[in-house]
Amino acid sequence: MLTDIRHRAILPYVYGKNKETVEIMLETKKEFIKKVELIYADPYHFKEKDWQYQLSEMKRTGSTRDIDYWKIQIKPPYRRLRYGFRCTTAQNKTIIVTERGYFEEIPKEIGNFYCFPYLHEADNFRAPKWVKDTVWYQIFPERFANGDSSLNPKGTLPWGSTNPTPTNFFGGDFQGIIDHLDYLVNLGINGIYLTPIFKAYSNHKYDTIDYFEIDPQFGDKETFRRLVKGCHARGIKVMLDAVFNHSGFYFEPFQDVLENQEDSRYKDWFHIWDFPIETEPKPNYDAFGFVSTMPKLNTANSEVKKYLLDVAEYWVKEFDIDGWRLDVANEIDHSFWREFRQVVKKVKPDAYILGEIWHDSLPWLEGDQFDAVMNYPFTNGAIEFFARQRMDSQTFVDSITNVLHMYPQNVNEVAFNLLDSHDTARILTLADNDKRRARLLYLFQLSFLGSPCLYYGDEIGLSGGEDPGCRACMEWEDENQDQSLFSFVQQLIQWRKEIKGFGNSGEFQFLTGQGNVIVYEKRTNTNRLIFVLNNEDKQQDIILDELANRSAKELFTNRQVTFQDQAKISVQAYGYFCFQL
Amino acid sequence: MLTDIRHRAILPYVYGKNKETVEIMLETKKEFIKKVELIYADPYHFKEKDWQYQLSEMKRTGSTRDIDYWKIQIKPPYRRLRYGFRCTTAQNKTIIVTERGYFEEIPKEIGNFYCFPYLHEADNFRAPKWVKDTVWYQIFPERFANGDSSLNPKGTLPWGSTNPTPTNFFGGDFQGIIDHLDYLVNLGINGIYLTPIFKAYSNHKYDTIDYFEIDPQFGDKETFRRLVKGCHARGIKVMLDAVFNHSGFYFEPFQDVLENQEDSRYKDWFHIWDFPIETEPKPNYDAFGFVSTMPKLNTANSEVKKYLLDVAEYWVKEFDIDGWRLDVANEIDHSFWREFRQVVKKVKPDAYILGEIWHDSLPWLEGDQFDAVMNYPFTNGAIEFFARQRMDSQTFVDSITNVLHMYPQNVNEVAFNLLDSHDTARILTLADNDKRRARLLYLFQLSFLGSPCLYYGDEIGLSGGEDPGCRACMEWEDENQDQSLFSFVQQLIQWRKEIKGFGNSGEFQFLTGQGNVIVYEKRTNTNRLIFVLNNEDKQQDIILDELANRSAKELFTNRQVTFQDQAKISVQAYGYFCFQL
Repeated sequence: MLTDIRHRAILPYVYGKNKETVEIMLETKKEFIKKVELIYADPYHFKEKDWQYQLSEMKRTGSTRDIDYWKIQIKPPYRRLRYGFRCTTAQNKTIIVTERGYFEEIPKEIGNFYCFPYLHEADNFRAPKWVKDTVWYQIFPERFANGDSSLNPKGTLPWGSTNPTPTNFFGGDFQGIIDHLDYLVNLGINGIYLTPIFKAYSNHKYDTIDYFEIDPQFGDKETFRRLVKGCHARGIKVMLDAVFNHSGFYFEPFQDVLENQEDSRYKDWFHIWDFPIETEPKPNYDAFGFVSTMPKLNTANSEVKKYLLDVAEYWVKEFDIDGWRLDVANEIDHSFWREFRQVVKKVKPDAYILGEIWHDSLPWLEGDQFDAVMNYPFTNGAIEFFARQRMDSQTFVDSITNVLHMYPQNVNEVAFNLLDSHDTARILTLADNDKRRARLLYLFQLSFLGSPCLYYGDEIGLSGGEDPGCRACMEWEDENQDQSLFSFVQQLIQWRKEIKGFGNSGEFQFLTGQGNVIVYEKRTNTNRLIFVLNNEDKQQDIILDELANRSAKELFTNRQVTFQDQAKISVQAYGYFCFQL
Repeated sequence: MLTDIRHRAILPYVYGKNKETVEIMLETKKEFIKKVELIYADPYHFKEKDWQYQLSEMKRTGSTRDIDYWKIQIKPPYRRLRYGFRCTTAQNKTIIVTERGYFEEIPKEIGNFYCFPYLHEADNFRAPKWVKDTVWYQIFPERFANGDSSLNPKGTLPWGSTNPTPTNFFGGDFQGIIDHLDYLVNLGINGIYLTPIFKAYSNHKYDTIDYFEIDPQFGDKETFRRLVKGCHARGIKVMLDAVFNHSGFYFEPFQDVLENQEDSRYKDWFHIWDFPIETEPKPNYDAFGFVSTMPKLNTANSEVKKYLLDVAEYWVKEFDIDGWRLDVANEIDHSFWREFRQVVKKVKPDAYILGEIWHDSLPWLEGDQFDAVMNYPFTNGAIEFFARQRMDSQTFVDSITNVLHMYPQNVNEVAFNLLDSHDTARILTLADNDKRRARLLYLFQLSFLGSPCLYYGDEIGLSGGEDPGCRACMEWEDENQDQSLFSFVQQLIQWRKEIKGFGNSGEFQFLTGQGNVIVYEKRTNTNRLIFVLNNEDKQQDIILDELANRSAKELFTNRQVTFQDQAKISVQAYGYFCFQL
């Protein structure tokens, strides 16, 4: 019984959505409960004999094969709330749900009820407003464009002349990005996420040598400043990659430890088990994984903390960057990230703080640390279903519905929703090079909540397997670019900006699909969009009750369609529609 | 199905117990699962083809009528962990539980598993070590003892001459406490919690006038210093009450706002809705409840924050107090409490920070804010069952088992477990003046985990209803004190200190009781205590399999008892035993 209804007065079940609104969620076993009402009152009204409690019906916001999710928003006049739930079962039984258990009637004693003691704006999850309206574009600088061959590192290969390897160089740089900013504007993106740009050893630059210097192969600080200004002039935000979990092997403090061993003044900057330090066969110090060239930084050490927080501040303050993406963010302590947030937001209150975390990330998304994480649970569902075709549609619906209910709504609206990255195979490769599936992926991603991110080159049909395959040189020859795919993505981005409800303003909910046809709606007060995606390699005919006797504009064909009593829709193999009602 | 097994890689399901140990908990529907094994490995071993994962069986640590709780402790060699669960159902089916759902066989892909990315000591919940071994004694200074009549406020009544009212005074003071320190030493307590002592208007002093001054009716700073020193000399810790949610009406900044209205430089120190300020019929500003004489402080305001943090620091630094009890702690923002912790721990790393929260308090107990809360969920179970006799034994077992599993073990060990306080009726009154029930309450409280607190006078049989009834003058006439009750409590406190497993060192678990006889064990590696408490007004005979063919010392009678095949035990009405095996 207790396992069939689930609530606790903690995240993600209750939270301040904004300075006057509390959002509350309840989970119930699928189809066990048919109606849920919130019982609520000011905590200090409850004490009086004549209770002031109110009842408001909650909305079912999603269902998986196991769970129904219910939500409601409340604006408590004194910002304080005691609450419980009145559930009506499918068999018309009443269950009153409180912190102290179940009752048949609403209990009299205030202490039984859940408490949201006070709505403090300071505690709310508050991400920068602009993020909701941002479409990101991830650039791996070494491979985007070579705009200044004078900076080419030794042994640089001709652009795209061969496949990427873990160690080769093609000379991508800042000038290359600057040269193609108008390409990005044309695509429609308005945020660039650059993988690391600081002085480092490898082509990926995740092994930092100096956090205060630009890697010379990319340019210098002045070029970087020009890049940021060029972006800002075009309404594009710039996010850098902070690799704070570990340094590179050639980071001066680590070199000092290697040289001076126990006498090094930097010996506590790392987690060294014993001296002398050994790097082979396995490091005798904490590292990223077991990679001896990436020694883990001791972020609990006050000097390290100060050093890294200075880095965090420097690039925001001096170069006006708009966000930090935090590499291996989950392996650094929460205490560090709390201070990091304070430092960054003090310099730039609307900077975006994005953690790289691949798993459930609630502990970092409570408002005191990150604004978002790279939303791999979203990625996983989308890729398994549309690209790899190895997830059934019910499991996909479940997985996305769970993603939407595992975090507060505020968090979902700024989640960094990616389909692939420098750390995964590219979507086209995952989709067996079937561009129809890639389109479904883009359609789903770009009509979903959150802050979507495209990985450079996907939009013109770049393919590639896992690292290093996914890090190939960007294709700049028109005839080798898939212009049709580009236009498709461009169109979706434009609709995201122009059509109410297409992006973050729309409430997302799955409607009943049939077979492998996924149907979902995005809804605002005034607008309703119904998306139909056929995830199978054959035409499918479905009946959509929602459209019966309605007239709608189908966006892709730009045609007005009028449906009869039975709204029958034929969707071609891997085809799609978006009906605007 | 998803509702029958419950885990999420967040508190209270997974946490760092100490710098090398991770504790993991799983909830399953009662009797659905008969065996649970943890599947675990270093996250970076998972990537290799030859997985290094291990399996370890988890222990069932408690059961309610709905849920089985399972726990395990793991020491991951590199402080990183990916994990899942292999559950065997009662029907011998295998269910592999992962973050991405259920499988029949252990899946190959690492991304499926739960992650505890890195065990950082900085993030662990770490309360002061001494708290586990502390028995608290709560003193309401106005009513404990009048040791210096020269300080008596105007209209002070002769000690105990009449019943307490919301406004009368009996002249209790610091000298009175100092005079009776040896009484407290004799009782055995080693921590004193004083309700507010700062300059205030009322007899309870929760309406502060000046946070930097001692209320003159109690003494001056020198007397207070003597009190603290006297306590410390006797091994007694001292905790003060911080009323930071609201000030008193006569707090200077509030008076300034009343006088200068919108022009007051303190107008942002409070939450004022509009000017002019009104106090009647209802305040037009946020208050404690709707009490106009207790205006809520705006703890997000930087001046207020600085002022209160200075207060927090001052009394620790200047007077060496050992802890802060935080009044109405739940209605102040988490951000404030995070800074509060930093400030207090910086001055005194082993100071105890205790929040007054009556409901589920997990959001304050994650390691970054409080060391403990006043554990009212514990109180509620104990009072409803033993005192009020209106809870059945299964519900009591459920309620205490849930209390033990709603927070990490580290939190439970320092929970402030009270039976009553200045905010509730006294236990004797709640127990219909039946001292046998009061003894059961004490036995349960003092053999439980946590940091128990006695409310002044309960130990010698003081009674009293809700405020103001519970705030009567302490009884100091020997012949009016219940010496037998005193000795009983004294004995329990002594055992708590002397017998291994009686206090925090013992693992608590309910054993099968019968009817209204509650049986539980406290167990260490070397010692096992079995407690039998009869919560009914008639003798009951039970069979205790655990004692069959065993010999045990019964502590209260100090007799060695040898049991036969059938260990039959007769417990008199509201009687109790403690068998030491």
